[in-house]
Amino acid sequence: MALIVQKYGGTSLADPQRIANCAKRAVAAREQGHQVVVVVSAMGKTTDNLLSLASEITDRPRQRELDILLATGEQASTALMAMAIHNHGIDAVSFAGHQLGIVTDPVHCKAKIRSIDADRIRFELDAGRIVVAAGFQGVSIDGQITTLGRGGSDTTAVALAAALSGSLAKATCEIYTDVDGVFTADPRRVNQARKLERISYEEMLELASLGAGVMHSRAVMFGRNYNVPIHVRHSASPETGTMIIEETPDMENVSVVGCALTPDLGRVSLRKIPNQPGVEATIFKHIAAADVLVDDIMQIEYGDCVDISFTVEFQDLAEIKPAAQRALDELGRGEMAVEVGLAKVAAVGVGMRTHTGVAATMFKALAEAGINIANITTSEIKITCIVSKEHGEQALRVVHDAFGLGESGEHGGKSAEMAKTPGHASISG
Amino acid sequence: MALIVQKYGGTSLADPQRIANCAKRAVAAREQGHQVVVVVSAMGKTTDNLLSLASEITDRPRQRELDILLATGEQASTALMAMAIHNHGIDAVSFAGHQLGIVTDPVHCKAKIRSIDADRIRFELDAGRIVVAAGFQGVSIDGQITTLGRGGSDTTAVALAAALSGSLAKATCEIYTDVDGVFTADPRRVNQARKLERISYEEMLELASLGAGVMHSRAVMFGRNYNVPIHVRHSASPETGTMIIEETPDMENVSVVGCALTPDLGRVSLRKIPNQPGVEATIFKHIAAADVLVDDIMQIEYGDCVDISFTVEFQDLAEIKPAAQRALDELGRGEMAVEVGLAKVAAVGVGMRTHTGVAATMFKALAEAGINIANITTSEIKITCIVSKEHGEQALRVVHDAFGLGESGEHGGKSAEMAKTPGHASISG
Repeated sequence: MALIVQKYGGTSLADPQRIANCAKRAVAAREQGHQVVVVVSAMGKTTDNLLSLASEITDRPRQRELDILLATGEQASTALMAMAIHNHGIDAVSFAGHQLGIVTDPVHCKAKIRSIDADRIRFELDAGRIVVAAGFQGVSIDGQITTLGRGGSDTTAVALAAALSGSLAKATCEIYTDVDGVFTADPRRVNQARKLERISYEEMLELASLGAGVMHSRAVMFGRNYNVPIHVRHSASPETGTMIIEETPDMENVSVVGCALTPDLGRVSLRKIPNQPGVEATIFKHIAAADVLVDDIMQIEYGDCVDISFTVEFQDLAEIKPAAQRALDELGRGEMAVEVGLAKVAAVGVGMRTHTGVAATMFKALAEAGINIANITTSEIKITCIVSKEHGEQALRVVHDAFGLGESGEHGGKSAEMAKTPGHASISG
Repeated sequence: MALIVQKYGGTSLADPQRIANCAKRAVAAREQGHQVVVVVSAMGKTTDNLLSLASEITDRPRQRELDILLATGEQASTALMAMAIHNHGIDAVSFAGHQLGIVTDPVHCKAKIRSIDADRIRFELDAGRIVVAAGFQGVSIDGQITTLGRGGSDTTAVALAAALSGSLAKATCEIYTDVDGVFTADPRRVNQARKLERISYEEMLELASLGAGVMHSRAVMFGRNYNVPIHVRHSASPETGTMIIEETPDMENVSVVGCALTPDLGRVSLRKIPNQPGVEATIFKHIAAADVLVDDIMQIEYGDCVDISFTVEFQDLAEIKPAAQRALDELGRGEMAVEVGLAKVAAVGVGMRTHTGVAATMFKALAEAGINIANITTSEIKITCIVSKEHGEQALRVVHDAFGLGESGEHGGKSAEMAKTPGHASISG
């Protein structure tokens, strides 16, 4: 008997029929003798519809009230899911976040989970019931309804699995979604993309932040911190999906497990900034206030000046320009230039740490395809190249191909060594 | 400074614009210096839509889950109402039932309020905030979400007003709805119907149970028990509506304040029942199990047999027939006959207690219109006549007319004495 936390996303719960299908999976796991917790998102477009109602009333809703509004979506799903489970003659009880004692900090709309009352859930599980928990929501210590922000239901599921894991037995977390698992690249962009059987938390974090879109990085981080195995799989298919797990020694046999494309970036360059301590802090204070995620940051100094550039998603450019201008105003010096039409392709793998030649393989593949590299950044397990937007999709495909990711392999793709890459450029530094 | 509890029904909150209009009224009361609690129902058809989702999943949802599902409707309204109040620069906080400490018994779908944590609300009011409370819902002592059943939001509002009334100052309860107030008869049936300035709890209870449809009788009973003045008024009109208050001596100057029609009734007659102790208990045990409200009950005995008849709403006939048959099966004797095509017209007024001739006025009016009376029942403040369904509307109009309800008067209509009715039939017995 294992303890399984199953999480179903909004698309998987878009109508009563789909809720019934998900209920069937939960019941099947229960009938195999497992203890089952089901975490649900709001049905289909419910959250969007609620936000749209709020926006008809005010442009600037208070976050406390937004949380009370949005939390209704998941709560309704729990009740419907419990009813659908009852149809199979299996006992189930639904709980809103505050009933489960999912206690968060008091930061509305992006609360962080502080603690979970696992005893309450264990009591119901031990009584033979399936527990249906509202994802995405919690309650602060002073009784306010909070929501966890983007990726919140995934985080609820992973957190529940962590809270319910004993010293002897780990709970498994199954994330049911509308894709088959984690792929070597987005299958809509790369025909040869292949589903991975497993991937490490670290690799998944790099791919999630690059827009692989399967799971929110926050939930993956939670899984890593509490070592919860996460099974990402399709809600309408019996196939196994991808296990996100701790890195194992054999994962290092493979240099690159996946590639990702960020298809439309802009780059903001602030030039002729005074080269003195604190200018970066001044600039990014204003950028942070605009609440936009900045991608790579580059800095070059010359004489008493520096140039600082950073890339952002194209749709964030309009918001970041005034923020950057406020930074220049405060510095009293400097010019702004904005480029558009960029894209970013990245290769990720924990095996890079021990394999040489990975960067060279990537650069060679792009060069042979005649794609110019505008910028390169690296981390311990990732290599990123900025290219022109028009070459983005092609760059993704040639890199995917260069690492042999579309071919079959134990863990996914050939290692750099297996590919017998001639160069041995180090990716560090 | 007064304390006002304003309750807005689903029709008044059907879309963001109407929510904004209701918010404006709450803000106006606040700006007049009053402390304001707003109780909201679910928006428009929300509750029906949620029920319909549940019915797509199961024919027999558990009531615990139904409560969790339905409670989301009012919770969403609270958040939107608070946002709409914020638009006016007035502070407001929304609360679900469990947050307000509206503690109920554990009977799902028709819970009764046991206690309310008034201190929590007073704290917010004293801080200058408008409190927006979810109607219709509470929480049981063991933390289960409950709903109050039909008329639940009205009950929440009256209960909050009762809980917040001090020994010196009473809170007023304003029920905002889509009618102008309580009328001498349903204005859709009687053109001459006139809005009442005030009506006693007792009269309102009789009219509510007869389908006046303005307020649920449960909330009126709550108001009577805790002596909370209830102001029923239109949410889109500045006019005052009708005050439901304790009976005052001058109310006795008027014999009849209003008339009501139940337009479509059936009558079930159980004949040749053994005339022995306990047969009534046996019969109504089965009827109660069918969860159908029975109207008037008549019993006639002859020899060793009795005939027992009762009227029910036409749409309940299908459910009550098998229940009645089960009663006959248990008794082992008797026959069932079912009549349809009946209607019931009633006249209500606390002044009946001290006025003679009220029944005679009613019977004479029906006789002069050529309407046959199939049955008569009376209570201390009500006279009811069963007539044929085809004569129902006409019966209502002639009775309304006979008591001069359409004319102007201090409290509503002429007294029987003023009408100089020749007969003096007593209504008792």
